[in-house]
Amino acid sequence: MNFEIEQKKLIEHLNYVIKGISNKNLIPILNCIKMELTNDGLYLLSTNNDIAIKSFIPANEITAIKSTGIIVVYGKYLYEIIKKLPSEIISIEEVLEDKINIFTPKSSFYLNCNKVDDFPILNLEETNEPILINKKVLKNLINQTIFATSLEESRPVLTGINFQIINNKLKCTATDSYRLASKEIELDQKTENELNIIIPGKNMVELNKIVNDEDDVAELHIFNNNIIFKFSNIVFMSRLINGTYPNTSALVPNEFNLKFKVKKTDIYNSIDRASLLTNEYEKHTIKLESQNNEVIVSSNIPEIGKVEERLIVEKNNDNNITISFSAKYMLEALRSVEEEYIELLFNGELKPFIIKNIEDDSLLQLILPIRTY
Amino acid sequence: MNFEIEQKKLIEHLNYVIKGISNKNLIPILNCIKMELTNDGLYLLSTNNDIAIKSFIPANEITAIKSTGIIVVYGKYLYEIIKKLPSEIISIEEVLEDKINIFTPKSSFYLNCNKVDDFPILNLEETNEPILINKKVLKNLINQTIFATSLEESRPVLTGINFQIINNKLKCTATDSYRLASKEIELDQKTENELNIIIPGKNMVELNKIVNDEDDVAELHIFNNNIIFKFSNIVFMSRLINGTYPNTSALVPNEFNLKFKVKKTDIYNSIDRASLLTNEYEKHTIKLESQNNEVIVSSNIPEIGKVEERLIVEKNNDNNITISFSAKYMLEALRSVEEEYIELLFNGELKPFIIKNIEDDSLLQLILPIRTY
Repeated sequence: MNFEIEQKKLIEHLNYVIKGISNKNLIPILNCIKMELTNDGLYLLSTNNDIAIKSFIPANEITAIKSTGIIVVYGKYLYEIIKKLPSEIISIEEVLEDKINIFTPKSSFYLNCNKVDDFPILNLEETNEPILINKKVLKNLINQTIFATSLEESRPVLTGINFQIINNKLKCTATDSYRLASKEIELDQKTENELNIIIPGKNMVELNKIVNDEDDVAELHIFNNNIIFKFSNIVFMSRLINGTYPNTSALVPNEFNLKFKVKKTDIYNSIDRASLLTNEYEKHTIKLESQNNEVIVSSNIPEIGKVEERLIVEKNNDNNITISFSAKYMLEALRSVEEEYIELLFNGELKPFIIKNIEDDSLLQLILPIRTY
Repeated sequence: MNFEIEQKKLIEHLNYVIKGISNKNLIPILNCIKMELTNDGLYLLSTNNDIAIKSFIPANEITAIKSTGIIVVYGKYLYEIIKKLPSEIISIEEVLEDKINIFTPKSSFYLNCNKVDDFPILNLEETNEPILINKKVLKNLINQTIFATSLEESRPVLTGINFQIINNKLKCTATDSYRLASKEIELDQKTENELNIIIPGKNMVELNKIVNDEDDVAELHIFNNNIIFKFSNIVFMSRLINGTYPNTSALVPNEFNLKFKVKKTDIYNSIDRASLLTNEYEKHTIKLESQNNEVIVSSNIPEIGKVEERLIVEKNNDNNITISFSAKYMLEALRSVEEEYIELLFNGELKPFIIKNIEDDSLLQLILPIRTY
């Protein structure tokens, strides 16, 4: 392997694959990046056995390809070295004794390589029928649901996002059993296939860092045990979580005995301030109480003090409600809704309530109340 | 106490005094801010027994003073509440049962107050003969020395910055016994007094966050056990460290058998890159070796690889040097020098070497080499 490349170009792609490496991995080869230079271009590959990331720099974006080859090198060091080299042309050459020499006129790094054969063999093939999703839409699907996944490993399926396709609609759902977030989109292409998979939430966090919101399409290739996202010369593979995702549709009521229409920033800021006088031990509990068109949000920590916030809502009938819930969950749900005015839908103080955009039914945030007596 | 004030004005001053509170303090009263409203204005005061910070908002910057008074309230909550309130007029009123009510048209917080008498009595009086230092100069004095203080409590005097006045010159010195930073300035006013005090480094970090670099003067009032910095309506008190600061002047050689003149960014970037292949366990040791006008900076981690960086220097004679030292110490020292070209002064591979500005002798960075065999 012997080639020259602009520092900017190489660091752009290392920025993608470095996210496939966890430095805490006890298996040294999983801390490595595999570089494969062909006449087509340079492939960079990393994996931590939970995700794999492959990035491709086509030959016409490489300054000079002098000889092809494959090497495996510690990812962290490769990344830090390229990052700190000046923004000029970098030469990378495989030398004797299983080393690579990374050099510019002033700097010369020799890095020991690992055995290419020790690097895991990854099957990053594609299916014939990928699902196509606009990248912006994919980012939204993740951002609007991921916060509701569970962090507790005791029920592994809840640590993932459920991707479900029925009747040409893709629905993403996340729940930790105290709240639920779901977002549904219409797929552009027709598909006969139905789908019901669970993707680990933490892997979707890494994917989201790599997907930019340029207006083009990502391909989803789904296999028995893993899923591949393919976009802009990047291939991102995640394992799937085995198990059956709970059927959450029964949880979501269809009728409500009270609706609020409220300005999103008003209720967000009120709950944000009220949350100052809550604590984790009490699950950040706040109380919401309607009195005609005025809503009072309140909370207290007895030894510190208490707070009352007032805001105006538009109601669909004369019913009133008093309900307690987690300010933290409510703020996370509110951050995901997009419109200036939003809707809160209630069925009584012990029933789950819903936060949604007014015009758009595709996004739904459901929160279970907290019984305070 | 009953007054109205702009949110922006109050949070500006709470930003100062909040730095006098450590939330880890086991004594509850030390987590509090004392607010004293007089007809002259509002005094805010905090202390953690190691530092005390007092800030003053004059009456003409307060929207309305309805009645004066003194209260003591948990600092963290007061700060977070004011920070999250909208940018409008806030009312603060002492109410029955030792509470204050902080309110705007939409929000109402009641905070429990602590007993005013429990708040430590602080003597923040001034001396008749303060030392006057331009604030920018004071910030530089701290920034250019503080990193060389020791973090180990085994020799308390080395955890502070030594302020010494002799012959109308103020010299600040910090050393952890492996490197030394010192900066000297000429005082504007004549003073007969000599001075030799040690101020805790961590307190200077907090001071530095509060001092802005507007072009006006800070007053230093020095007492037996503490020092007061006074500037822009702020009073900052720090305790002093008892003990005798080591006489470091004997450490600093006057003659050198080799001088380099080198571009600061060149040597900084070379050492920064070479430091990638060092580790904490080996004290980040790198080697510098001169060969005529070329300098080679090198380091290695045997299991990972090695690096060589080359740069051009101007030498004052034909001598050469090979010397090993901590890349971390060298980078910190280099960050403090200001000129485009700087000087390195050597006396052999086992003798301390010096980094300084070329034109200006007031700043001196000294580093002890590491014996590598």
